[in-house]
Amino acid sequence: MASILPASNRRMRPDKNTYEGKRSVYVKNPYLDAMDEDILYHLDLGTKTHNLPAMFGDFVCVGGSPNRMKAFAQFMHKELQLEGDGEGIEDICAGTDRYCMFKTGPVLSISHGMGIPSISIMLHELIKLLHHARCCDVTIIRIGTSGGIGIAPGSVVITDIAVDSFFKPRFEQVILDNVVTRSTELDKELATDLLNCSREIPNFPTLIGHTMCTYDFYEGQGHLDGALCSFSREKKLDYLKRAYKAGVRNIEMESTVFAAMCGLCGLRAAVVCVTLLDRLESDQINLSHDVLVEYQQRPQLLISNFIKKQLGLCGQMS
Amino acid sequence: MASILPASNRRMRPDKNTYEGKRSVYVKNPYLDAMDEDILYHLDLGTKTHNLPAMFGDFVCVGGSPNRMKAFAQFMHKELQLEGDGEGIEDICAGTDRYCMFKTGPVLSISHGMGIPSISIMLHELIKLLHHARCCDVTIIRIGTSGGIGIAPGSVVITDIAVDSFFKPRFEQVILDNVVTRSTELDKELATDLLNCSREIPNFPTLIGHTMCTYDFYEGQGHLDGALCSFSREKKLDYLKRAYKAGVRNIEMESTVFAAMCGLCGLRAAVVCVTLLDRLESDQINLSHDVLVEYQQRPQLLISNFIKKQLGLCGQMS
Repeated sequence: MASILPASNRRMRPDKNTYEGKRSVYVKNPYLDAMDEDILYHLDLGTKTHNLPAMFGDFVCVGGSPNRMKAFAQFMHKELQLEGDGEGIEDICAGTDRYCMFKTGPVLSISHGMGIPSISIMLHELIKLLHHARCCDVTIIRIGTSGGIGIAPGSVVITDIAVDSFFKPRFEQVILDNVVTRSTELDKELATDLLNCSREIPNFPTLIGHTMCTYDFYEGQGHLDGALCSFSREKKLDYLKRAYKAGVRNIEMESTVFAAMCGLCGLRAAVVCVTLLDRLESDQINLSHDVLVEYQQRPQLLISNFIKKQLGLCGQMS
Repeated sequence: MASILPASNRRMRPDKNTYEGKRSVYVKNPYLDAMDEDILYHLDLGTKTHNLPAMFGDFVCVGGSPNRMKAFAQFMHKELQLEGDGEGIEDICAGTDRYCMFKTGPVLSISHGMGIPSISIMLHELIKLLHHARCCDVTIIRIGTSGGIGIAPGSVVITDIAVDSFFKPRFEQVILDNVVTRSTELDKELATDLLNCSREIPNFPTLIGHTMCTYDFYEGQGHLDGALCSFSREKKLDYLKRAYKAGVRNIEMESTVFAAMCGLCGLRAAVVCVTLLDRLESDQINLSHDVLVEYQQRPQLLISNFIKKQLGLCGQMS
C-alpha cells in the first residue's frame, strides 16, 4: 500500500485557513471505516457504547493536569452563564484514570498528562472521537505552564511555531522503524486573534514566540537540579541563550506533536502557556502559592475571553 | 566542567550486583549539595517541608495508573498483614495531581503516567527523594500492562533488556542539544529471582524476554486503529515479526529510560508487565472486564510474593 501521509513538511490542509467555510476533522487511516466497533481504549469510550455525535465540541481545550482541566471546565461554565453552578460537572472518561474529559456548552476540556507520548495517545483518540462525532470547524487550544527564557515570569506565550531541542521546527515521528519529519507550524490567524484578545485584559503580559518542546524536563531543558546533571552552569546558560537567539521564548513538553497532529488532521490549533520562571535566572519554581495559582489561571482567562468573543458574547470577564 | 556521566554504554555501578552489602542511591549532580532547599516540584515534596529520611522505602514499585498503584499499596498492606485495613492509605503527593505516591510498610508505590518523559520526571524526583532520605539497597520494579508479540494474552514478561523502536538496547538521552546513548540492561539476578518466584504460582505463564519501548502507542507500535495510519497490515506484521526475531516479547512505553536511569543511579531494577493482547493477532483490547482486571493484577501478585519472600514471610498469597 502506498503511504498516505506526507513524509515531508508539506501540510495536508483541505481548504483555506479561515474561520469561514466548514472544515472537517480528518483522520488519515483507511482501516477505520472497516472496523465494526472502535474502542478508544485510553479514554474508555467507544462507538458502540457511546453516542459520540451528541458529545462533540466546537472548542477543545487540552492541558496536562486533570484538576486544572476540571477547574477550566467549571470556569467556562460560569463565564458562559450556563445553567447550574457547574460544580457537579462529570468526567466523561470516568472509567479510566489515564485522562479526564469534561464538557460544558460548546467547550470540551481534556487532560493529557505530561510529555509527547502521553498527549499523542490522547490526540489519536480525541481526533477519532471528533471524527466519529462528525465534528467540523474545531478549534483546539493547549493551555499550560512552561519555563520562560528571557521574559518575566507570568508572561503568556502564544506559540507561532514549536521547535525541538535543536531549535528546529519539526516533529520526528517514528512509524514502525522509520523516522518521518512533520511540520510544527500552528495557525497564524488564531495566534494573532489570541494576541489581540490578550490586549483587552489589563496587566496581562502576552507575546507570540517560538516554543521549545523537549522529551525531558531535567537534562533536556538544562536543569541543574535533577538527579543527573553532567553539564556546567555556563553550558546551560549558553544553550538557553542560543535558544533565545533562535526565537524561543518558552519551553514545555508537548507542543511539537500537538502542532504536527492537529495540522495533519485539519484542526485549527494554538498553544498558550504561561511562564512560571525565567530559566536564565533559576531552575526551581519559588513562587508563593497565590502567585502560582494566579499565573496558572492566565491561559484559562485568555481562552475564556477568546471563546466568548467567538460566540458573540461580551468580551471580558468580570 | 568535565562531564561526570558516561557518554557510552559503560555502567557506573559502584559495587557488585548482589543482595549482600549496602548499595546507596546515587545522584550524579554536583549542584545538589549546594542547594539550600530542594523542591521536588512535580511530587509536591521538599527537603525543608518534609522529613524525607522518615519516608524511605526498601522496595519501590512504579506503574502508569494512579488507581492501580493505590490498589497495589492496599493489596501489599493486606499481604504484609499490617495493622488496619489499608483502605484509608493516603497519597503522599496529594498536593499535586501529576503523580500519586503511597507507602505501606517497606513498600513505596508510585504512579508515573504514560510515556518516557512522564516517567523520567518522576524518576529524577524519586531518585533525589531516595538520596535525601539516605536510602540504601533499594529494589525498584515497574509493574504495568503491555502488548505482547507471539505470546498468549495474560502472559507476564520479565524484561531482561529494554530495546528501542529499532530493537537496539539503548536509550538516547538528549542533554541540552547533545544526544547521549545509555545502557538499558536490567538486573539479571533480580529477573531470575522473579521468574523463579512466578513458578510457585499456579497457572501463571511467565517468561523472560526483551521489551520494546516506543515513544508512541499508535504509529510507533504499528497500530492500524489510530487517527493516523500510513502503513499496510503487511508492513505492520513484518515489523512485529522482525521484533519477535530480535527477541522482543512485549511493547510498552517506559522501560528504556527506566532501565537507563535506575542503572546509572545504583538502583536494582526490574520491569514486569502483563500482556493484554497478542499484537500479531489484533490491535484492540477486547477482553471482558473481569479478565482484564485479573490480567492487570498478575504483576502485582508476582511482586507481592517476591517482596514477602525477601522479607522472610511465607511465599504465596492465599
